[in-house]
Amino acid sequence: MSELTALSAELAARASELDAADELSCLRTRFVLDDAVYLDGNSLGALPVSVPGRLADVVYREWGELRIRSWDESGWWTAPERIGDRIAPLVGAAPGQIVVGDSTSVNVFKAVVAAVRMAEEEGGGRRDEILVDATTFPTDGYMAESAARMTGRTLRPVTPAEVPAALSDRTAAVLLNHVDYRTGRLHDLPGLTAAIHEAGAYAVWDLCHSAGALPVGLDEHGVDLAVGCTYKYLNGGPGSPAYLYVRRDLQPRFDSPLPGWTSHTAPFAMHPSYEPAPGAVRGRVGTPDILSMLALETALDVWYGWSGGGDAGGAAHEAGAMIESVRAKSLALTDFFLRCVAAYVPKGRVESLTPTAHAERGSQVALRCDDAGDIMKRLIAQGVIGDFRHPDVLRFGFTPLYVTFADTERAARVLAETLEGAG
Amino acid sequence: MSELTALSAELAARASELDAADELSCLRTRFVLDDAVYLDGNSLGALPVSVPGRLADVVYREWGELRIRSWDESGWWTAPERIGDRIAPLVGAAPGQIVVGDSTSVNVFKAVVAAVRMAEEEGGGRRDEILVDATTFPTDGYMAESAARMTGRTLRPVTPAEVPAALSDRTAAVLLNHVDYRTGRLHDLPGLTAAIHEAGAYAVWDLCHSAGALPVGLDEHGVDLAVGCTYKYLNGGPGSPAYLYVRRDLQPRFDSPLPGWTSHTAPFAMHPSYEPAPGAVRGRVGTPDILSMLALETALDVWYGWSGGGDAGGAAHEAGAMIESVRAKSLALTDFFLRCVAAYVPKGRVESLTPTAHAERGSQVALRCDDAGDIMKRLIAQGVIGDFRHPDVLRFGFTPLYVTFADTERAARVLAETLEGAG
Repeated sequence: MSELTALSAELAARASELDAADELSCLRTRFVLDDAVYLDGNSLGALPVSVPGRLADVVYREWGELRIRSWDESGWWTAPERIGDRIAPLVGAAPGQIVVGDSTSVNVFKAVVAAVRMAEEEGGGRRDEILVDATTFPTDGYMAESAARMTGRTLRPVTPAEVPAALSDRTAAVLLNHVDYRTGRLHDLPGLTAAIHEAGAYAVWDLCHSAGALPVGLDEHGVDLAVGCTYKYLNGGPGSPAYLYVRRDLQPRFDSPLPGWTSHTAPFAMHPSYEPAPGAVRGRVGTPDILSMLALETALDVWYGWSGGGDAGGAAHEAGAMIESVRAKSLALTDFFLRCVAAYVPKGRVESLTPTAHAERGSQVALRCDDAGDIMKRLIAQGVIGDFRHPDVLRFGFTPLYVTFADTERAARVLAETLEGAG
Repeated sequence: MSELTALSAELAARASELDAADELSCLRTRFVLDDAVYLDGNSLGALPVSVPGRLADVVYREWGELRIRSWDESGWWTAPERIGDRIAPLVGAAPGQIVVGDSTSVNVFKAVVAAVRMAEEEGGGRRDEILVDATTFPTDGYMAESAARMTGRTLRPVTPAEVPAALSDRTAAVLLNHVDYRTGRLHDLPGLTAAIHEAGAYAVWDLCHSAGALPVGLDEHGVDLAVGCTYKYLNGGPGSPAYLYVRRDLQPRFDSPLPGWTSHTAPFAMHPSYEPAPGAVRGRVGTPDILSMLALETALDVWYGWSGGGDAGGAAHEAGAMIESVRAKSLALTDFFLRCVAAYVPKGRVESLTPTAHAERGSQVALRCDDAGDIMKRLIAQGVIGDFRHPDVLRFGFTPLYVTFADTERAARVLAETLEGAG
């Protein structure tokens, strides 16, 4: 038996042990999966088994039979805030602060403009600068640029590490990513939020790559505003609606740049003048996109049926506890993947961009190599599905709800073989 | 036989004749309908028979099996512009000018801001006024107000009739509704657009209550920008995505206030700086909402399978021809409804707010009476589904694709009985 074969046998055995001890392992059957190793749940989460049936009911009965009556009778009208409350415990928010709807991009615009207006209310035009994560997923930067242009502020891109030094009494708002989409680096949300508040500015966090993969603690850390998508670790389906968090005490001051009729305090009175609703509803805009929204609602069931349920408070508590288990498994998976990669892949062939420190790691591993585009194509052909990020990054996302340690060992092994074949 | 019974027999017979001669009657079977008379398709269109099967395929196969590959392989990525091209012939637009996504409210914001920026490009800040239809569906007014605030313009509400006199060299943009949501009045799109252009301003039309019910002629009349929803006469489903039209020659100057990553010329290059794509794609924002969008795509089949099809140009021509037939039937339906109401309902019990002139009528009839809220509840309980608009309007929408003349006679008869019972 060669050294590599022995090593592989050892790591495969270890994977079996870890899977046997995994308290979340029963959740895998809640998703539609096949023989592939799906490590792209950080781009599009797998299909929850419960979604097709629910969606058929929404279409046939709620739309087809009840039609217009469903806005009331099937709870369509209140879906944005109801589903917001289902997401809330996963990101550490009490109910009544999250509303679902629109895309992440649109919610970034709402949040940044609203943050600038809050700063203006206090300090006038003196706070004339918006800081944005220079390494951000591009759309956040584009939307922040538009928000700056339309509020007469200057946009200043800085890395998250540079934020504390860049803060001043000119800072109105700071837009940051909780986890970097490319490297998988987890930024220090508590520390950065505190520094932003120390400077008298408002913190807007993008949770796209953290919500559903690790605890966020929005309320605990006093985050002002946050946005996120629901089609990654929340498994809401392709392009499912995003969400907006506005901290409860800031809601009366949330002055939306997109004051659509569904955020009106009396939407069916059809008043010609706008009077915003209280609470999270104020973050709504147009008519909610029901099919996608109710698919998402059902996809979130997995967070609530884990160990029995109970009343609403109990269910929220349970979902909050589950995210801790998810985080523990996420770190164990990425640790194990890095260990397998180190064991199987010749030194120097790939370089990990993902921090080794747990406190700095999200739920993905990013490996750099010059031929990443070609390698990812070959991996996918062999049933290991990650994604390629231009120009040289192999990205592997680990969704603890359905990725196993055996998957993880196999992915690293196939990666090593592929790199060798391409080398 | 009483006079009323004789009248009713006569009108019912007339309804049978009209239904027998209706060239669109075969389309009714393409929708899921029941024994009720559904006159609320101007709020939520009925379920097309083709949608549930297509949606199941999207969920099970495209999402569940292909997962992330579907962005390319199932054509998800290009859906917004592809579906825009399917809507185009229905509103008189050549391909490449319409993109689907976001809500109507969000698209109103994009369109009005972009129109103001076009005016500014030419005349600087001199054009400091936005005119808005004072009788508009409220969200248009709220969004126009926000657009005015964020571009430093003044919003001036005027009735559509007052627009010509209100136009001046201070006017940057005018936002109007093609059909009034409350009264069903059809405004003079060609004449008003010409007047707006004469004044050097930009015309933005909201087509929510006209698209799919009557020909719009966007290209023919030189409309600058237009928006509309897809869940009324286009039957896309609850909250299905809206669309944005930007006339081809204006596209290079379309400067979006919501420049999301999917409108970038190279979205996957992840450039930190924004460079807008050419064409209709420039109107996109975030990740498209696939489930709702593909349900809409299938719902639009009814416009293309009518008399055979052919190549893309032929199909567009056919859809354009069909909208003419739809308009003819729509007018016949609303004429017949008004005739039945006049015959059955005692004079003075209700007052029609809908113009009698065809050139001024959309595809709905609005009847005013003091007890409208109560009456509509009773009508619905008897299987005549219209809707109530605060404070005193009974609104009946006529979707020519599935409403029959027999439905129409029955609705008027039940209305008369209900009014009598409540009187």
